[in-house]
Amino acid sequence: MHHNEQQRALVLFSGGQDSTTCLAWALKRFAHVETVGFDYGQRHNVEMSCRAPVLEKLPPLLGNDHGALGDDHVVDAGVLGALSDTALTRDAEIRMTDSGSPSTFVPGRNILFLTLAAAIAYRRSIRNIVLGVCETDYSGYPDCRDDTIKAMQAALNLGMETDFVLHTPLMWIDKADTWSMAEEIGGEAFINLIREETHTCYLGERDIRHEWGYGCGTCPACELRMRGYEKFRSGKQS
Amino acid sequence: MHHNEQQRALVLFSGGQDSTTCLAWALKRFAHVETVGFDYGQRHNVEMSCRAPVLEKLPPLLGNDHGALGDDHVVDAGVLGALSDTALTRDAEIRMTDSGSPSTFVPGRNILFLTLAAAIAYRRSIRNIVLGVCETDYSGYPDCRDDTIKAMQAALNLGMETDFVLHTPLMWIDKADTWSMAEEIGGEAFINLIREETHTCYLGERDIRHEWGYGCGTCPACELRMRGYEKFRSGKQS
Repeated sequence: MHHNEQQRALVLFSGGQDSTTCLAWALKRFAHVETVGFDYGQRHNVEMSCRAPVLEKLPPLLGNDHGALGDDHVVDAGVLGALSDTALTRDAEIRMTDSGSPSTFVPGRNILFLTLAAAIAYRRSIRNIVLGVCETDYSGYPDCRDDTIKAMQAALNLGMETDFVLHTPLMWIDKADTWSMAEEIGGEAFINLIREETHTCYLGERDIRHEWGYGCGTCPACELRMRGYEKFRSGKQS
Repeated sequence: MHHNEQQRALVLFSGGQDSTTCLAWALKRFAHVETVGFDYGQRHNVEMSCRAPVLEKLPPLLGNDHGALGDDHVVDAGVLGALSDTALTRDAEIRMTDSGSPSTFVPGRNILFLTLAAAIAYRRSIRNIVLGVCETDYSGYPDCRDDTIKAMQAALNLGMETDFVLHTPLMWIDKADTWSMAEEIGGEAFINLIREETHTCYLGERDIRHEWGYGCGTCPACELRMRGYEKFRSGKQS
């Protein structure tokens, strides 16, 4: 293994607000940071197309004291589309299912992403894996929960006979605090980068501009982002 | 969920000796049995081409008291090839690496297979997942170990909020006992089916016939199968 693997991190980076914040968090903590994205036929592929501008513009924003941005790995996870029949990969209506989960639910999606990321980390001698899952703004995905992530750390370390640490810096904070974390890390310039370059909207809407970013403004992901931004700004004024 | 999900099983079925034995084991235990295979650019695709004849010929061998064979799912797991650089997906020499694992090692391969299988089981209302991993004929794969499988059961049940049972009927027996288990389940006719129709050889050799099956006869997988068969037969004579 690489002698400085403890200083190496792999960030699951989708091009959304949460994973962009996690990427900046990792660049402030680790000497060498690589990224991985999963291409699985997301609607319009908007998120994936946001990745390159963020990767280009984020490091210059962070001042001099941050790690080096290394390789970006894009993995074909099209198998998810074959296994799912959900709104995230089709133009179906976003709605809640009878079981209470959003219809974008792909069972075990984050378990799959973590497993693929761990295989890359293993080969790249990277010890730290960073992902932007969150229990606070709970959206019905059990594979985002802290219990699941910790069970996966155990399973991956046993199954690969290694010593990964899974970091989830957003697990216990809400969306307003995610905006605040971004501000602490990169100031107003980073807030503006998130507003302009990251994407969250389930519908892939990039033409409608709001103060908090681009998106339809009504899907659950837009609502969450918008309310978090409003709370973040009002918190600063009070 | 399906009312009889407890009587439904999904077998990870590759077309090899172990998973064929597990399939028969499952058909004797569960009312409804589905199968899943992973296509990830295995050499010559020999194992995958063994699946159909086994699926056709096995149920008639088992007498009247067995479950119904349901859908067979073939999943494109080509992403593994993209993540690995190992002998199983290339025509490189089979050898042991410096770390002591066979060079066919793909980190976390069984974790990935289990995750994909669980996503199918979830959608098919299947509670039982059966796989032919084994600790006894230990071949250096940490993702075949009992600890890993049990950690994965916890992670999958947390991450999918469900109640899977992972069955590993071969975990604590050796290859001779795997042959014995097959004989107990389906008699000499099943032994012959395994010899004629299943494939184990790492090199994809199907032209050289031995008493125990087809294969190069010298790769680690052939050696294990051959020695197990010899022990099984000599145990019966003594």
